[in-house]
Amino acid sequence: MSLDPLLPETDLTRHRRLRDQGSLDRAELNAVLDAGFVCHLGVVVEGRPLVVPTVYGRDEERLYLHGSVASRSLAGGTPVCVTVTHVDGLVVARSVFEHGVNYRSAMIHGEARKVTDPDEKLAGLRRLTEHAAPGQWSYARGPNRKELAATTLLALSLQEASVKIRSGPPDDGDGPDADLGLWAGTLPLTSVWGPPAADPALPDNTPVPRHIARREGTRYA
Amino acid sequence: MSLDPLLPETDLTRHRRLRDQGSLDRAELNAVLDAGFVCHLGVVVEGRPLVVPTVYGRDEERLYLHGSVASRSLAGGTPVCVTVTHVDGLVVARSVFEHGVNYRSAMIHGEARKVTDPDEKLAGLRRLTEHAAPGQWSYARGPNRKELAATTLLALSLQEASVKIRSGPPDDGDGPDADLGLWAGTLPLTSVWGPPAADPALPDNTPVPRHIARREGTRYA
Repeated sequence: MSLDPLLPETDLTRHRRLRDQGSLDRAELNAVLDAGFVCHLGVVVEGRPLVVPTVYGRDEERLYLHGSVASRSLAGGTPVCVTVTHVDGLVVARSVFEHGVNYRSAMIHGEARKVTDPDEKLAGLRRLTEHAAPGQWSYARGPNRKELAATTLLALSLQEASVKIRSGPPDDGDGPDADLGLWAGTLPLTSVWGPPAADPALPDNTPVPRHIARREGTRYA
Repeated sequence: MSLDPLLPETDLTRHRRLRDQGSLDRAELNAVLDAGFVCHLGVVVEGRPLVVPTVYGRDEERLYLHGSVASRSLAGGTPVCVTVTHVDGLVVARSVFEHGVNYRSAMIHGEARKVTDPDEKLAGLRRLTEHAAPGQWSYARGPNRKELAATTLLALSLQEASVKIRSGPPDDGDGPDADLGLWAGTLPLTSVWGPPAADPALPDNTPVPRHIARREGTRYA
């Protein structure tokens, strides 16, 4: 089973503001999710919102999230909102009012479920690990029974989701402010993986595995 | 008036998990806030959480947030949670279980207030603009009365806040897994401002102002 390639318009996913930045394309949603590995998980605790950063991975149908503080409050069927945002740069306009941010953002709504089945938990953790650190699942020592039990993994359907993207120059290039003679454009931001830093506790000359070394200099998000 | 340099321990700010990563130092909180300009704002809408990315600035006592979708739901005294997270890299351990993220994260709890006084609104927008785009407040055309009215600005006290930071190598360098002979360490992530990209609508040879040009190559977050 796979999800509809068109994202559903619901009360939660409908783009009300800046509609031109919204997209209903599930492929764009997946691209935003695949570009990063840290999300912000929102839950309601005693009527108050709590927004916690955590790591995630996904398969075709659901997001897997590493449980944390928030998971204490997720006793089955609790509504959550997961947001992933990549900041691509600053939009520098002629007027303060038109300043903004170039970004890609995904938002997923649903009820998070605690994964309890050991096989699904292992499969979910594999997705999560390989998403953040490709190659590590088969290289590092896998979780034993005790570690598996000590890990909280949440699953969230990717069914109800929305994506918003802004790119390109500011919007006041064809208005009256264009005559002010001011510079306008964008200031791009780029995230890059640096050189691997060995744990000082490592014996000298422990080789850096290829799946780690090859990330150096590549772009993130 | 200024806030206590020691962050208060309340039910909302107490570090329950990974306590060693928590800090009660307001200077560290401010440093995390000053390093970025996009936060995740959490609100409760009809019992469900909503997590929206938006831009912010601050003064000594409060955070100013650009209103957005979420602000429709902020009819005075609504509890919010604002989280700012910088991802500094990946923690690559010997065991999957000990993998993690190096990060700096600030979390602020309180009731967001819509700023209505025009003077405070202008001052808050100035903080917000200068925080994201230093130098632009005096360079760009300032907001006129109509634009000011069309902008939703939220204020949130920095009183109740917490900060969490993780840095350094993985934690399994002195455990039994150290004998596995596996590489371990960190993969650092660095965000850098790229060269300014001029709006194609600009007349040729419009000079890039110094406050814009000098950001190129500097680190973000």
